[in-house]
Amino acid sequence: MKYITILGATGSVGTQTLEVIKKESEKFKLIAFSANKNYQRIINTIKEFKPKYVAVVDKFTYEKVREYCEMQNIDINIFEGIEGLTTISILPEVDIVVTSIVGMVGLVPTLNAIKAGKDIALANKETLVTGGEIVMKEAQKHKVNILPVDSEHSAIFQCLQGNSIESVNKIILTASGGPFRGKTKKDLINITPEQAIKHPNWNMGKKISIDSSTLLNKGLEVIEAHWLFGLDYKDIEVVIHPESVIHSMVEYKDGSIIAQLSSADMILPIQYALNYPKREKSLINKLDFYKINKLTFEKPDMINFRGFKLSYDAGIEGGIMPTILNAANEEAVELFLQKKIKYLKIIDIIEECMNKFENENNIELELILNTEKIVRKFIQDKYNF
Amino acid sequence: MKYITILGATGSVGTQTLEVIKKESEKFKLIAFSANKNYQRIINTIKEFKPKYVAVVDKFTYEKVREYCEMQNIDINIFEGIEGLTTISILPEVDIVVTSIVGMVGLVPTLNAIKAGKDIALANKETLVTGGEIVMKEAQKHKVNILPVDSEHSAIFQCLQGNSIESVNKIILTASGGPFRGKTKKDLINITPEQAIKHPNWNMGKKISIDSSTLLNKGLEVIEAHWLFGLDYKDIEVVIHPESVIHSMVEYKDGSIIAQLSSADMILPIQYALNYPKREKSLINKLDFYKINKLTFEKPDMINFRGFKLSYDAGIEGGIMPTILNAANEEAVELFLQKKIKYLKIIDIIEECMNKFENENNIELELILNTEKIVRKFIQDKYNF
Repeated sequence: MKYITILGATGSVGTQTLEVIKKESEKFKLIAFSANKNYQRIINTIKEFKPKYVAVVDKFTYEKVREYCEMQNIDINIFEGIEGLTTISILPEVDIVVTSIVGMVGLVPTLNAIKAGKDIALANKETLVTGGEIVMKEAQKHKVNILPVDSEHSAIFQCLQGNSIESVNKIILTASGGPFRGKTKKDLINITPEQAIKHPNWNMGKKISIDSSTLLNKGLEVIEAHWLFGLDYKDIEVVIHPESVIHSMVEYKDGSIIAQLSSADMILPIQYALNYPKREKSLINKLDFYKINKLTFEKPDMINFRGFKLSYDAGIEGGIMPTILNAANEEAVELFLQKKIKYLKIIDIIEECMNKFENENNIELELILNTEKIVRKFIQDKYNF
Repeated sequence: MKYITILGATGSVGTQTLEVIKKESEKFKLIAFSANKNYQRIINTIKEFKPKYVAVVDKFTYEKVREYCEMQNIDINIFEGIEGLTTISILPEVDIVVTSIVGMVGLVPTLNAIKAGKDIALANKETLVTGGEIVMKEAQKHKVNILPVDSEHSAIFQCLQGNSIESVNKIILTASGGPFRGKTKKDLINITPEQAIKHPNWNMGKKISIDSSTLLNKGLEVIEAHWLFGLDYKDIEVVIHPESVIHSMVEYKDGSIIAQLSSADMILPIQYALNYPKREKSLINKLDFYKINKLTFEKPDMINFRGFKLSYDAGIEGGIMPTILNAANEEAVELFLQKKIKYLKIIDIIEECMNKFENENNIELELILNTEKIVRKFIQDKYNF
């Protein structure tokens, strides 16, 4: 039996992780989870999975959950606030922490979980984008597995099995191109949040759907792949593949390419990470090649989707620059979702921040967290009316 | 240094194997090779690679080679006839035998090489089609690796690395569909050998090019895969993929598909088999996904390409039936190449033989060799005027 903590259990990947735990309940047990404000899902998860611990970030929701559990005589430890994320990530009985929380807030608890020797099923890409250097060093030191949960990195991880990383020539990250593939900047001026969150192939949370539409998501994945697989940026290629059937590929030195394909369903990478290195009975729809009409490929459009180029640039610059990019993006996307800025302004703000703030190469956790605050404050002060 | 014997060094795969040995001469040394009638290539190979042994099947060519070597004072052991194939396959100094010879003649020397503990780089599919049961048993007993050299089985072998065969759901063999994909029987009536050997993607020998045009080649590959990977026929699927970019795939139980892709060049599977489990510097053109327009997939046409269905049937029936199918095909293709029968007659003759000869389930080498003779004689007597 593997004992699991989920950080961010009420979001898209979190609820799908619960689904896997439920379907493979003979192998997995939910020990603890965190959530922010979704009271009803928190209560349902407590009732269904009977975890021993829950961390609720939002104070008001925390109080309601506590009251409910007292009234119902539910035997559970409830923690309040952001510190709870770490508390439930380092519990002695936990084997693996699923970091399905969105945003930079995932960094500190993930680092602490690694230091406590927990394997990480990593769905929070901001952890590696901002703290990649520190995180991978700690993971190596504490001999923990970082098991990627997003579809692209899981694909690469699967394609690397049975081969040595030294024999890799490059990795090829595929990208659907998002809902605005083929559009020009002019077409994108008046895009609304409602339009931007409608992804053609994947059903995901709002933040990642917006990032997918700007291609910034793919840029963050490039940085994540750089740290996760220890590859130079020149050896990470991105190809637009609108059908989202091939989830990524590895090209080996001999010219052989190994690719991973499946239907577009996050259940698979979650299940693979939790069962790794085993493969269990399928929980997803299988592909039928007699019905797949065609698979197509294109070069990414770096002119109209400047955010993609910016994130590549930030990755290559290294140091604190990916943190600046990521914090600016998180803040700008939030303002866009609140309809306080227009769609193209997201990327303008990121560029503005990358130009405004000096890079710094001696990466420490404090620096990352401080930079995040400074960037967020700058954007809030200037753009949030 | 790996010491290599090549059976059939003057054919398509044989000469490409020599190319790999030449380009990786710091790792590989040609100890011995066999050939049939191609005098000039035999002499060139002896001069360039300086092997210690050569087996020449054709008597007249053997005499000429012997004379030449004597005249030139070349220090080499020359064997005559079919027995030479075994002699050079069991030499104590040989590590790996490349069976790039075409047809059932590959079976006996391959079996003997296995019994002598040599690893096999298997390009001769008739070995497993006819003697799969015996060959795989001996390979297991003598703990030798059977390293597939054709593109499809090499692809599957690569896709299986790092995974257990128990976690496989099915394998998906891809097929280009050959030069006559989309044609009906009516279109195929007057096909000439010249038309049939023009393969759209692969540059191969005549026999295999004809087999590829009738789809019989794909049927033989299904039988080969059945033995090589120990899978039921129901777990071996064939999909037409005209671009020949994906060389085959493995679908795992969890619904994840691992595929192998590369340019259509036999050099890669040869290089992979010789270097296995390592991957070395590329000797082939790399794929460029920015230039690949699309990859398409279709269901195989079992109506107009009846040979494919017949070979599937022979495989499922098992016993001596695949030998009957294979011997009939070898004989019929030879008659077609000699323009003694028409194109569609190839498949008619195979079907005739599968109906005429009784199946037999206790497979022994003698039975295989006898059946081959009987089937060949029947066809010669009836169709060779």
